[in-house]
Amino acid sequence: MSTTAGLVIRCKAAVAWEAEKPLAIEEVEVAPPQKMEVRVKILFTCLCHSDVYFWEAKGQTPLFPRILGHEAAGIVESVGEGVTELQPGDHVLPVFMGECGECAHCKSEESNLCEVLRVNTDRGGMLHDGKTRFSINGKPIYHFIGTSTFSEYTVVHVGCLAKINPAAPLDKVCILSCGFCTGFGAAVNVAKPKKGQTVAIFGLGTVGLAAAEGARISGASRIIGVDVVSSKFETAKKFGVTDFVNPKDHDKPVQQVIAEMTNGGVDRSIECSGSLEAMISAFECVHDGWGVAVLVGFPSKDDVFRTHPLNFLHERTLKGTFFGNFKPRTDLPGVVEKYMNKELELEKFITHEVVLKDINKAFEYMLKGESLRCVIRLDA
Amino acid sequence: MSTTAGLVIRCKAAVAWEAEKPLAIEEVEVAPPQKMEVRVKILFTCLCHSDVYFWEAKGQTPLFPRILGHEAAGIVESVGEGVTELQPGDHVLPVFMGECGECAHCKSEESNLCEVLRVNTDRGGMLHDGKTRFSINGKPIYHFIGTSTFSEYTVVHVGCLAKINPAAPLDKVCILSCGFCTGFGAAVNVAKPKKGQTVAIFGLGTVGLAAAEGARISGASRIIGVDVVSSKFETAKKFGVTDFVNPKDHDKPVQQVIAEMTNGGVDRSIECSGSLEAMISAFECVHDGWGVAVLVGFPSKDDVFRTHPLNFLHERTLKGTFFGNFKPRTDLPGVVEKYMNKELELEKFITHEVVLKDINKAFEYMLKGESLRCVIRLDA
Ligand SMILES: [Zn+2]
Ligand SMILES: [Zn+2]
Ligand SMILES: [Zn+2]
Ligand SMILES: [Zn+2]
Repeated sequence: MSTTAGLVIRCKAAVAWEAEKPLAIEEVEVAPPQKMEVRVKILFTCLCHSDVYFWEAKGQTPLFPRILGHEAAGIVESVGEGVTELQPGDHVLPVFMGECGECAHCKSEESNLCEVLRVNTDRGGMLHDGKTRFSINGKPIYHFIGTSTFSEYTVVHVGCLAKINPAAPLDKVCILSCGFCTGFGAAVNVAKPKKGQTVAIFGLGTVGLAAAEGARISGASRIIGVDVVSSKFETAKKFGVTDFVNPKDHDKPVQQVIAEMTNGGVDRSIECSGSLEAMISAFECVHDGWGVAVLVGFPSKDDVFRTHPLNFLHERTLKGTFFGNFKPRTDLPGVVEKYMNKELELEKFITHEVVLKDINKAFEYMLKGESLRCVIRLDA
Repeated sequence: MSTTAGLVIRCKAAVAWEAEKPLAIEEVEVAPPQKMEVRVKILFTCLCHSDVYFWEAKGQTPLFPRILGHEAAGIVESVGEGVTELQPGDHVLPVFMGECGECAHCKSEESNLCEVLRVNTDRGGMLHDGKTRFSINGKPIYHFIGTSTFSEYTVVHVGCLAKINPAAPLDKVCILSCGFCTGFGAAVNVAKPKKGQTVAIFGLGTVGLAAAEGARISGASRIIGVDVVSSKFETAKKFGVTDFVNPKDHDKPVQQVIAEMTNGGVDRSIECSGSLEAMISAFECVHDGWGVAVLVGFPSKDDVFRTHPLNFLHERTLKGTFFGNFKPRTDLPGVVEKYMNKELELEKFITHEVVLKDINKAFEYMLKGESLRCVIRLDA
């Protein structure tokens, strides 16, 4: 039994007071976990593009003050009523989409879109009572997608926590909690390239490079990276990307360039940039007869995907995925084991490291396009 | 050895002299089969919508005079140079798309879009030399998609002929040659509903009803038929369709009507009408997480499929198929066996029967929407 169980914990957190203003390190109160909730001591968190989007709050509902952060690893401090799957001391990865285990999606082999714990970016409180567990001198601070990991302690629904091997280094496996698994799963669970097949990857950030890692592990013979920033190709080579196409270097549509490079199209494509034009190209660049395109990157609100229906009738497949189709509680422990067995190289995704008080540097690295993952240490 | 082998055969054929004019029964000369070709005595042929489209020649390249027809069954009369797989007397189904057995598509488990013998609606001659094997007093008559079955004898590439069980009744299995397999295969090979799942079928003609037959055999618990002609529902019930939706009866989009009927969407949908709006509805009516929509109906030239990319990201799949993904030579013999084993009910698709001289009645039945399949007997 932890000595803090049942008590309010005072700790440091990075608070976003308003859109686009640097986060402020504050002392916050973290209430004890309620029914089906778990309070987690976060040791490492990373910055992901989604944190930046909701901090910028351009297309999104602004909800401030808020504690952002969702890619992280930590240790259970205490558990609320009804929690039997976890106990203090367990090592966990919080995940922005949960797994209740009971709904039609959780029971389906194909879906990971749990109806109960599906991501809800507009919710600032906990599912149980709609209230926040964070406050500063009594003033509530909003949660972010059920995780809020930019805090030394956070409260998470038990269905959003994957219990992992306690031997796993948390400063590495923290990246599995969002970006890596999103791309990696899109490759190994959804696109499923066969040995020797060709794969195109649109967008060479962390998610795209994780998709490349998945394609490489699946035995793809050729991995074509597509990005509008040519300098990304050097880095991408380390992730198994063999060819590079910058759409800006060509007069013809990139799908045509790729078709010409590959005798009619790639076997699989994975779109990780979120650009509408890239989505269309990613679909139209797959080979007729058997090509499969997978959408991962998040679209804008008013985007309309468009293509000639014949592109489908020529036996192409288009599908989309959230979090690489991984069911967080069921599947993440296995991904951690893959890393422990040295099947996955996570280290190469971690380009920067800062302590909590320097968290705004992580934003700078990302906004300048310098970083893949910057790990923010809360254990110092 | 047939007594006619190597000789020109004079026989009756229904010739389309120009667009939308009734076919004329003519005596035609049918040249001997050339390299890799087979001359087939057609005993039964059916009228399919595609014959009507190319006869109307509205969106299509007009190519007249032409012998239409592609859904048929017959017996090999003689074979050309290099043909070893077939011999006179073999029972065969001609198919508008062939299987060379050697190309990347034929070697892929997933594709049936043979590169060599892919359907080419603009080609009026044979692949070997571009010339026609039909003439009337020396004047060439064009072929149609490599089959031209509205003739007592026709010449077909060996790769476009499926050799079937000689015990199979040709007046029934002739419908497997196009429409039935297109819909049936879309269900069993592509949509693949699981036992107990719900399936929506858009367009309740022969292809849609064959898709329903495939869904029924797969164990679908509920088959929702969608058509703008409500009178089709009575017939559709015989094909396992359990529910009916006429989009005209509702103010809201049909995808929403279906979602409300099915607690969020059907597990599978199959679009057989070729209407662009139906394609969009068929995609958007499948359940998130696992729904699969399959496009079968042929679009118009200028159609643009459009949807919000989020519909994909919510883990829906959209794919298309030609000829139900059946590889004609490899797979059709097995479909014939299914019928011989009484697993398939083909009889209910055959609503009319005429002899060759009355072929224009078959067009009337179809244009009035009275028929599913009208078998045209050439054996009389
Ligand atoms: Zn669930
Ligand atoms: Zn993320
Ligand atoms: Zn082929
Ligand atoms: Zn047809």
